[in-house]
Amino acid sequence: MRVHAYAAPAASEPLQPTTIERRAVGPNDVLIEVRYAGICHSDIHTVRGDWGPQPYPLAPGHEIVGVVTEVGPEVTRHGVGDRVGVGCMVDSCRECVNCLRGDEQYCLRGMVGTYGATDRDGTVTQGGYSTHVVVDADFVLAVPDGLDLAAAAPLLCAGITTYSPLRRWGAGPGRKVAVVGLGGLGHMGVKIAHAMGAEVTVLSQSLKKQEDGLRLGADEYFATSDPATFEALAGRFDLIVNTVSAAIDVDAYLGLLAVDGTLVNVGAPPEKMSLDVFSLIGGRRSYAGSMIGGIAETQEMLDFCAEHGLGAEIELIPADRINEAYERVLASDVRYRFVIDAATFA
Amino acid sequence: MRVHAYAAPAASEPLQPTTIERRAVGPNDVLIEVRYAGICHSDIHTVRGDWGPQPYPLAPGHEIVGVVTEVGPEVTRHGVGDRVGVGCMVDSCRECVNCLRGDEQYCLRGMVGTYGATDRDGTVTQGGYSTHVVVDADFVLAVPDGLDLAAAAPLLCAGITTYSPLRRWGAGPGRKVAVVGLGGLGHMGVKIAHAMGAEVTVLSQSLKKQEDGLRLGADEYFATSDPATFEALAGRFDLIVNTVSAAIDVDAYLGLLAVDGTLVNVGAPPEKMSLDVFSLIGGRRSYAGSMIGGIAETQEMLDFCAEHGLGAEIELIPADRINEAYERVLASDVRYRFVIDAATFA
Repeated sequence: MRVHAYAAPAASEPLQPTTIERRAVGPNDVLIEVRYAGICHSDIHTVRGDWGPQPYPLAPGHEIVGVVTEVGPEVTRHGVGDRVGVGCMVDSCRECVNCLRGDEQYCLRGMVGTYGATDRDGTVTQGGYSTHVVVDADFVLAVPDGLDLAAAAPLLCAGITTYSPLRRWGAGPGRKVAVVGLGGLGHMGVKIAHAMGAEVTVLSQSLKKQEDGLRLGADEYFATSDPATFEALAGRFDLIVNTVSAAIDVDAYLGLLAVDGTLVNVGAPPEKMSLDVFSLIGGRRSYAGSMIGGIAETQEMLDFCAEHGLGAEIELIPADRINEAYERVLASDVRYRFVIDAATFA
Repeated sequence: MRVHAYAAPAASEPLQPTTIERRAVGPNDVLIEVRYAGICHSDIHTVRGDWGPQPYPLAPGHEIVGVVTEVGPEVTRHGVGDRVGVGCMVDSCRECVNCLRGDEQYCLRGMVGTYGATDRDGTVTQGGYSTHVVVDADFVLAVPDGLDLAAAAPLLCAGITTYSPLRRWGAGPGRKVAVVGLGGLGHMGVKIAHAMGAEVTVLSQSLKKQEDGLRLGADEYFATSDPATFEALAGRFDLIVNTVSAAIDVDAYLGLLAVDGTLVNVGAPPEKMSLDVFSLIGGRRSYAGSMIGGIAETQEMLDFCAEHGLGAEIELIPADRINEAYERVLASDVRYRFVIDAATFA
C-alpha cells in the first residue's frame, strides 16, 4: 500500500512530498488514517543526521493522532472509527524484564522507533508525516473523547516525556517543581505539573514568555540569564525537569534543589556534562534522566490530560510549510508546537 | 579542663602528643572518657589541609566511642557509665527544615563538625584523638550492649555513611547492590547490605581482597581493572554505592545499572566528574550523593548493627603509631580500619 508522505531524500535536503510503502494490515495491526502529526525537535535532528546516519528517504513524525480505518482479525483493543495515537515507538521485544514491566522504551533488545528504525519484519519504519500508518495494536493508544485531536498529537511525545518524570518523582500537592525551558516539552511540563497539584516555577533563559508561562499554570517565572535567580532560589525545589537539550551548568541547577531533590534531564545534549560531586553529596541530591514512557503509562497520561482538559498549545500548519516550521523550531520561534494537518500530505 | 590528645601542629607536620582544652560540662553536655577512636581517611585530608586551611593545632577523630563519666543537669538521654559514641557532627542549628526532619548533616546553617569547626560558643572543635570529649547530649549516640566497643568506633562514620544510602535506596531482599571499593567504608557497606538481605557484589580495583570480600558477605567479587567486568555486569544492579573518593568513569558505572538504578557517591573526589546524559536517560538512572546520616538514623544504624552482630574489621593501634597508620591508609594497606586505643593518648 503506497501512501502520501513528506520525507527527507537526504540529510542535507529539505522534506518534500513523496509516497512511501505501508505494510498490509497484519493480524494484530491497526491501519490509521492520520489526522495530525506534531513536529518534535528530534524529527529535525534525526532527518538531518545530527544523531548519526539515517536510512533515506525518511518520513519523520512520532506525535501521531488519527482514526482507525481497518483492524486485523486479532485486534481487540481498538476498533474502526476509534480515535487513536502513536508515539515514539511501534514495537519492542515484549519478553525482556523491562518490556514485561511496562517499560518498553527501555527494551533490552531495543524498542522499534516510529521512524528510521528496523522493524521486526526487516523493513525501515516511516513516521507520521503521512496520510496513513500501520502499527501493531499493542503500541496504539486510545485518545479519550475529551481531547481535541490536533492538540492531543504533541502529547504522544512532549506529553509523556514530561508526565513520566513528574509522576515518577512525585510532583503533586506540597511539592515544588521547576521546569527548565518553556518550549514544546516545557509548556506541557508546566501544564501537567500544575494539574498534578504541584507548585510550579518556570526557569527560562529570559522573561519573554513569562505571561504565557503564568497562564499555562506556573506560579512563578525566573530568568536563568540572571545570576540572581540562582541565589534567590537556592535549595528551593524538590524536582527540576530540564527540557533543554543543550549543556547547562549542572552544579548551578543542583544548587536549586532541596535535600533529596532530583534534577531530571529529558533531553540529552551532545556534549558530556560535568559536575562537582559535592553538589550531590551536600544535599543527598540526584541527577537523573528519563526517556518518554511505557505504553501503559502513555495511556495513563492521555487519560490524565483528558480528565484535566490538557492539550498542547499548537500552531496548525499545512505540509508545505514543514521546512519553514523546522527553521522556526530551531530558532525557538513557536508557541508551542507545530502540528501538521495530515489532510495536506495528499 | 585540659586533656591529653594527639594533634597536628600544622598541615605539614605529623601528629604529636599534646594537651587540648575541653569546655566545662554544660547543662545538656556529656563528658565522655574516650575508649577508642577510628582513623578515617578524611582525618588525614583535613589535618593536612587538602580540603582547605584548618585551625591548628588540630586533633582529628570523628569515630569516637567511650563511656560517660559526667552529665549536665538537663541531660536525660545518657547517664554515667553508659557506652556512647560520637560521629562527624556535634551540633547543628536544630531549627531549620532539615534539622527538624532529622537531617542535621544538611543543616541549612551548617552542622558543627566534630573537629576543626567553629562551635556555637565560638571555640574550635577538637576531635576524638583524645582522652576525653565534651559533647551536647543530643549529638551523643548510645552504643548497644551487643557491640564490641572498639569495633563499633568506625560505625560512627564508615557505618552510617554506607548504611544511610543503602537504607534510602532500598537495599534489601531481591535487590542487587554493588559496593565500589573494599576499604573502611566499603567493607561496612558489604556487611550492612548483606545484613539487609540484598545480593551484594564488590567492585574492586583488583581481586586481591576477594577472599575477604566474600567472607564479609559479598555474593560476588569483580575487578574493575578488567574491562570484561563492565560487559559481564551491564544493566545488573539496582544500586551501586561508590566509596572511592577518586575520579571514576561515571558512564561505565551507570552502564552497570538496571532501569531505575542509582549510583550513589559517598565520597567527593576533588575533580569534577563528567558523564554522558544519555547514560542516565537510557535507563531512567540516577547519579546521587549521600553524606553520613542524621542523628536518629545513626542510632538506628547502631541498633541495626547490634541486632545483626556487625562491627568493623579493625587493627587496634597505640597513639604513637598514628602517623605510620596514616601512611598505610594512604597506601590502602589496612584491613579495614585503624582504631586507636585511647588509653595511649595519656
